[in-house]
Amino acid sequence: MKKIPVAILAATGAVGQRFVQLLADHPWFEVVAVTGSERTTGRLYGDCVRWILPGEVPPAIAGLTVSPTEPDLDVPVVFSALPTQEARDLEPRFAAAGYAVVTNASAFRMAADVPLLVPEINPDHTTLIRAQQQNHDWSGFIVASPNCSTTSIVLPLKIFQDAFGLEAALITTMQAISGAGYPGVPSLSIMDNIIPHIGGEDEKLELEPKKILGTVAEQALTLAEIRLSAQANRVPVIDGHLASVSVQFSDLATAEEAVEALTSWQPPVVCAGLPSSPAQTLVYRPEDDRPQPRLDRNAQDGLAWTVGKLRPCGVLDVRFLAITHNTLRGAASGSILNAELLVEQGYIDRD
Amino acid sequence: MKKIPVAILAATGAVGQRFVQLLADHPWFEVVAVTGSERTTGRLYGDCVRWILPGEVPPAIAGLTVSPTEPDLDVPVVFSALPTQEARDLEPRFAAAGYAVVTNASAFRMAADVPLLVPEINPDHTTLIRAQQQNHDWSGFIVASPNCSTTSIVLPLKIFQDAFGLEAALITTMQAISGAGYPGVPSLSIMDNIIPHIGGEDEKLELEPKKILGTVAEQALTLAEIRLSAQANRVPVIDGHLASVSVQFSDLATAEEAVEALTSWQPPVVCAGLPSSPAQTLVYRPEDDRPQPRLDRNAQDGLAWTVGKLRPCGVLDVRFLAITHNTLRGAASGSILNAELLVEQGYIDRD
Amino acid sequence: MKKIPVAILAATGAVGQRFVQLLADHPWFEVVAVTGSERTTGRLYGDCVRWILPGEVPPAIAGLTVSPTEPDLDVPVVFSALPTQEARDLEPRFAAAGYAVVTNASAFRMAADVPLLVPEINPDHTTLIRAQQQNHDWSGFIVASPNCSTTSIVLPLKIFQDAFGLEAALITTMQAISGAGYPGVPSLSIMDNIIPHIGGEDEKLELEPKKILGTVAEQALTLAEIRLSAQANRVPVIDGHLASVSVQFSDLATAEEAVEALTSWQPPVVCAGLPSSPAQTLVYRPEDDRPQPRLDRNAQDGLAWTVGKLRPCGVLDVRFLAITHNTLRGAASGSILNAELLVEQGYIDRD
Amino acid sequence: MKKIPVAILAATGAVGQRFVQLLADHPWFEVVAVTGSERTTGRLYGDCVRWILPGEVPPAIAGLTVSPTEPDLDVPVVFSALPTQEARDLEPRFAAAGYAVVTNASAFRMAADVPLLVPEINPDHTTLIRAQQQNHDWSGFIVASPNCSTTSIVLPLKIFQDAFGLEAALITTMQAISGAGYPGVPSLSIMDNIIPHIGGEDEKLELEPKKILGTVAEQALTLAEIRLSAQANRVPVIDGHLASVSVQFSDLATAEEAVEALTSWQPPVVCAGLPSSPAQTLVYRPEDDRPQPRLDRNAQDGLAWTVGKLRPCGVLDVRFLAITHNTLRGAASGSILNAELLVEQGYIDRD
Repeated sequence: MKKIPVAILAATGAVGQRFVQLLADHPWFEVVAVTGSERTTGRLYGDCVRWILPGEVPPAIAGLTVSPTEPDLDVPVVFSALPTQEARDLEPRFAAAGYAVVTNASAFRMAADVPLLVPEINPDHTTLIRAQQQNHDWSGFIVASPNCSTTSIVLPLKIFQDAFGLEAALITTMQAISGAGYPGVPSLSIMDNIIPHIGGEDEKLELEPKKILGTVAEQALTLAEIRLSAQANRVPVIDGHLASVSVQFSDLATAEEAVEALTSWQPPVVCAGLPSSPAQTLVYRPEDDRPQPRLDRNAQDGLAWTVGKLRPCGVLDVRFLAITHNTLRGAASGSILNAELLVEQGYIDRD
Repeated sequence: MKKIPVAILAATGAVGQRFVQLLADHPWFEVVAVTGSERTTGRLYGDCVRWILPGEVPPAIAGLTVSPTEPDLDVPVVFSALPTQEARDLEPRFAAAGYAVVTNASAFRMAADVPLLVPEINPDHTTLIRAQQQNHDWSGFIVASPNCSTTSIVLPLKIFQDAFGLEAALITTMQAISGAGYPGVPSLSIMDNIIPHIGGEDEKLELEPKKILGTVAEQALTLAEIRLSAQANRVPVIDGHLASVSVQFSDLATAEEAVEALTSWQPPVVCAGLPSSPAQTLVYRPEDDRPQPRLDRNAQDGLAWTVGKLRPCGVLDVRFLAITHNTLRGAASGSILNAELLVEQGYIDRD
Repeated sequence: MKKIPVAILAATGAVGQRFVQLLADHPWFEVVAVTGSERTTGRLYGDCVRWILPGEVPPAIAGLTVSPTEPDLDVPVVFSALPTQEARDLEPRFAAAGYAVVTNASAFRMAADVPLLVPEINPDHTTLIRAQQQNHDWSGFIVASPNCSTTSIVLPLKIFQDAFGLEAALITTMQAISGAGYPGVPSLSIMDNIIPHIGGEDEKLELEPKKILGTVAEQALTLAEIRLSAQANRVPVIDGHLASVSVQFSDLATAEEAVEALTSWQPPVVCAGLPSSPAQTLVYRPEDDRPQPRLDRNAQDGLAWTVGKLRPCGVLDVRFLAITHNTLRGAASGSILNAELLVEQGYIDRD
Repeated sequence: MKKIPVAILAATGAVGQRFVQLLADHPWFEVVAVTGSERTTGRLYGDCVRWILPGEVPPAIAGLTVSPTEPDLDVPVVFSALPTQEARDLEPRFAAAGYAVVTNASAFRMAADVPLLVPEINPDHTTLIRAQQQNHDWSGFIVASPNCSTTSIVLPLKIFQDAFGLEAALITTMQAISGAGYPGVPSLSIMDNIIPHIGGEDEKLELEPKKILGTVAEQALTLAEIRLSAQANRVPVIDGHLASVSVQFSDLATAEEAVEALTSWQPPVVCAGLPSSPAQTLVYRPEDDRPQPRLDRNAQDGLAWTVGKLRPCGVLDVRFLAITHNTLRGAASGSILNAELLVEQGYIDRD
């Protein structure tokens, strides 16, 4: 198969760089365009990016000239790492112009006709795309990834929802500094400290799972009825969002049964064909001191959920911890997997 | 008033050093003896202690010769920083020999006739002392401080218990490395990381508040009936145990009423006469990003509880964050305050 | 003595806040005005400052209304925490208008007629003030503090210069993040990392000591002839600039003699009368693992130099380590001590 | 070629684990035995190791039963991660029994007839092996790797020695916590801090380069005559030893010429055939804020030296910074490369 040409919108920022790194050698996609702000347009990507990831700028992309973020790029697919405000304006213009917009931005996550997509959880939500195109008279479309903290918890919630029904989840996160982008969190604020507040994060954690775990029927979405409570903390950890979660089931289930539900879970069949799909999507660690961000965030190249320490909860039914890598599974890698699913499902043409 | 001579048991360890630092200049107590392990006995304290606190060893105490930990010290009061195992054996021997044992060790915290004492919360629990003396035929007694993580949450729980009744509390802590003593947590384990496990801590958090918030009548203790769920995390923070807590009340109460309960609370009158009592025992921070360990742990010389971010909880009634300094309020300072209360109440003679 | 009214220029920034904190209760000075940028002028200081220090904004200063930074303040003395560019324009205007400008900014540090002042080292350099006033026809004047990294090393260099003559110093610093102000260093840049570059810092370290250690005669300054080489590193430490220094003397001297020079050194007599003068200006630590930032930066309330580990150098004569607290001795406290010296010497009137 | 069976001595420690990780899939060597202390012998490696590296224990090695460290292993080559004291006793017994002992321990580094080997620097030093065997009447031999901090600086020193002659080097290191093994540095000692002392490290830095840069003729070693001064600091960085170095050349050379010497240098031809040889051995970074531990330690899979910021020194000739990954190039990977060289040179038989 010939590779599908793609562009990265806002390629010089923290998430944009991850897209660059991960797409540089992708089997299905080839980056042929990168866009940036006024400061960078017209310059070579390798010259104007302030590269914050280990290793070097991939040479093939370093040599691309940065374009303005306008819907005149000669590609069918754009990966968007745009800031929220710009995404709100620009992503619909790309969708209207026929592009498949695979976005990591929050602007349209909760729009009723935009799939908030995690291939292993709700691959059927892509049927919203047709509604979206009809609603707006677009030839293209927008598909969004959830917030990186939502990602950490949503797969175990999905598994429990399917197995036992899910009434409530009470969530406390410990989130890495890379989630705030660059320059992001000042070192004077976070060294030897915790900041018990991330703007808008609690709200996202209390809302997005209801959509991802909702049902789509006849191109219409119904939110899941789950009571959610979240409190997000920023901790001095570089990568990896760890969440401590208590859940209440609809049906009776023991901690052993809940562990069994996790370890016996298999991703939907459609995921098997996606090149970025990890060999093991959910890793359950039996040790009593896992998961840990530094030891577990890179599991399966940063694409796995690692869950552990599941046990009875003295207030709700069971407690557990879950972690994903916030800039990989929780951002760039998650969006790339979304794009792969869209190819597999035919929403993006394979040439 | 002449100062009351006191001894510090296990004075060279991390908590012992805090006792040394805080008692060096105390208005009521004078350290006249320090004890230590075989390695240190017979040597000057200043020569054998590996001092890990900022500043110097207080000169008056540096010049004391370290004694073995045996009940032949010429003092009426001993502050115990003994490790659990040694405390289990030694503290009863001191109590039997007539000493007032004011301990920070966990060995007897849950013993039915040992007050688990926080002066601002349950000063009446000291009436258990008489029962304790009768039960064991002791002339002395043991009074214990709670675990440092328990301390962080127990005052707000008490206030809510009094105001609205308390059904349940779901607790997730982010605890400082100093809580593990010295050498304690290896830097390779905690830098850029979180360890979601502290041995025995979840159990203490789920048990000790029931005793502290319990009732003592006719020298007998009844545990409070509160459902508790706790998960303790070690985070890369030097001092200060932060807890994210959701609570369910017996009576209906809004978040505003809960904040009002906190801010209008006043410590029991008996506390006013204690020299270490902070001017303000509970500080409520209205900012949405407080409390923070580095900014709030030293409030009121490390003796205050700082609470913040109280708001409705999507699963239980309200959520909030609370912090105390784990080696001050949560350990040495807390025990010293206990001793002061015992003086004030007449359990320790003022000369 | 009635207190001297003073103003703080740029009082809301990181250094400005330190001035506020330290001057809130000063025996000689009383803060009656604070200035700030357009965003803050006209508002109460306590309402518009984003306070980053532990503790609260001092109430007396919280209630001051922020003024624009213009030379129409009713005080004889201004403490300047202005950014370099603004200092370049504004400080001469204040000096021209008759103010004593005691500055922490770098704008005029190397001006030939501006004293680069450390009271314990070169109190006689204030005789440059008259030359400065004549050169510019100013009724006021500017007196500058050195860069915070220069401060760390310059007292031991002075002592060696006086004792043995000083030919060369080779300096490698490990500097705290607070030296970059707020927001300053992004946490993503410095966590688990070192940045071996601080803009302009190497140059300041190679230049400023020559002025401070130079001689002033007949109101003219001669730079000291010392070869200097410096390389500044930013390290993940909150406060305290540590320097590893090798020096070459003019005269033969052993490491023992060099230690003796340090420990027998006494500050100039004039310093004894300054209220902020520490009881001990230079602390020599004999342990082989000192000084350490966290243990030694606060020595003498952050006003001491702590030196240690002096031993023969295999290339030059001796090596040692020195540390000062960069925002106290190396910034705000140092400037306040300068102002106290100016009062003592009569350059600032005691009413 | 059939793989050469090898054993790892002290395989459960921090360095031993790195050997396990790196040799699990080596093209020339196959781990068939691992040894450990009494606590672990007789148990499966995967069951008794407390694995501190990211990822899992390699399955093939997890299934090996841990042997006592005795010279009765059925392999021709042992990689030694023994502690110094044990190495002093055990390594000669293995050499006497005919084993090629490729060691990372310090016990015999400075022995006159033991090559202190870095393949890219002194591959000819292996001719000392014959002398060693004759001196001790051994059929096997010991070859040592330098200390991890020595490694960081010794390649640039070698290049300068060859290009311009080397008179002196003045070294200040900032070393990672992983250099101290596990549990190693307590977090309470190093968080928000620097420890300016690492036991024995300054001495190693001032001695080992003289041997590595020395000459071997007629099976006898002559130390290089270079004046060295070193001061080692422990910093809160996980991996990567960074060194700030000033050097004095024998011949006149500019900073530009020194950079040219570094960038034009090529490793000895023999290295090209070693499977672990990096594509680029020395990386020169032109940016003024490089090298940085987090960004550069993993260059070339942790086998490269990264050098930067070379410029004139105000005291000696030039200054620069250099970094290597301390547990890879500076420990396990370096020793593996040594073993590969020994195979290539015929000191270890390819079956």
